Amino acid sequence: MLTVALPKGELLKNSIHILQDVGLDFSAFLDSGNRQLQITDSSGQAKGLLVRAQDVPVYVEYGQAQLGIVGYDVLREKKPQVAHLVDLQFGHCRMSVAVKKSSPYRSALELPPHGRVASKYVNCAREYFYSLDFPVEIVPLSGSVELGPITGMSEAIVDLVSTGRTLRENGLVEIATLYESTARLIAHPLSYRLNTGHLLELVEKLRLSVLSTIAV
Amino acid sequence: MLTVALPKGELLKNSIHILQDVGLDFSAFLDSGNRQLQITDSSGQAKGLLVRAQDVPVYVEYGQAQLGIVGYDVLREKKPQVAHLVDLQFGHCRMSVAVKKSSPYRSALELPPHGRVASKYVNCAREYFYSLDFPVEIVPLSGSVELGPITGMSEAIVDLVSTGRTLRENGLVEIATLYESTARLIAHPLSYRLNTGHLLELVEKLRLSVLSTIAV
Repeated sequence: MLTVALPKGELLKNSIHILQDVGLDFSAFLDSGNRQLQITDSSGQAKGLLVRAQDVPVYVEYGQAQLGIVGYDVLREKKPQVAHLVDLQFGHCRMSVAVKKSSPYRSALELPPHGRVASKYVNCAREYFYSLDFPVEIVPLSGSVELGPITGMSEAIVDLVSTGRTLRENGLVEIATLYESTARLIAHPLSYRLNTGHLLELVEKLRLSVLSTIAV
Repeated sequence: MLTVALPKGELLKNSIHILQDVGLDFSAFLDSGNRQLQITDSSGQAKGLLVRAQDVPVYVEYGQAQLGIVGYDVLREKKPQVAHLVDLQFGHCRMSVAVKKSSPYRSALELPPHGRVASKYVNCAREYFYSLDFPVEIVPLSGSVELGPITGMSEAIVDLVSTGRTLRENGLVEIATLYESTARLIAHPLSYRLNTGHLLELVEKLRLSVLSTIAV
């Protein structure tokens, strides 16, 4: 039986809807009283695994799930050994550099050299400033990154921005975009090549379903 | 003015109580409606910073907070450059190896060599098995680590155990303890040496307050 790893949080609802479109029903994960992390689709075709977004590629990389849905940001940050299959066209957001609105910085290169940049995405942040050949110190935080500039610990942050509300509420503005992100369908490379559990058929259906949504 | 970094979650309530005992009131962080991450104590002596537990040592290491309260588990995992000052004697828990109750493994050395161990504490797990000279593959997860053995992705987990309820609910049992953990008072080393903002006085008061609690 196929196993699909689904991400908790922002992308869950749309992930479940797109799988429903191709005949896999994991809507039980959306019940507010649900505490189960593993359920079997009502048609008995596949198992769903509900895990943290960052853990989706881990389950897929280790072959515990053959398919997974996860944000491109996680793939860019962790670089897991998985096959990237379909851009699912939902969960649009962007990885941005932001600073205090009251600061004088209006582009990444205007930041003070050897200044500090706080981020949960330390690899993305490091690669970006490296590509600019601009030396900064990356401060690894695990949450509330906006506190970096507010407390004065860092001049800037690198974080995922969707509506921009959190930035506005904290008096921050974006000054550069590293890349755009959306939800992606990923697969365990060997399972994909061997077409385990008729995986290719399902992937094709999902691809067509996404295309039809865009056409409308 | 002194800044104290406080950890969100399990340790927050006791952290606030112990600071109240020495005259610093950050109880506003406990109001259910509170959204502020930075408040000044009502006596105007110090500022409180409410951050994720893993971020407490980051704020202290970078000198943005002179003092912080955090679990020993975080200090063992991240090894930040901070001064360890006082064992605050609350938040007792332990870092343990656990396996499925139905598995044949009853000690760490009985695990299959080159087997998999899932953990959020990858450094602690790696060091432990290294100290046993026992080769395992560490699978880094960020949440719901108990899914590792349940899905069959890993033979064991290394995780923080307090009451043991999560393990029991998931049919897992502890087979080894890496170390015991409690909440710790930490300081920015230079601020501590220079006695910034009469920090030493506050640390001494906290030490006495902990001792008097134990005596009772």
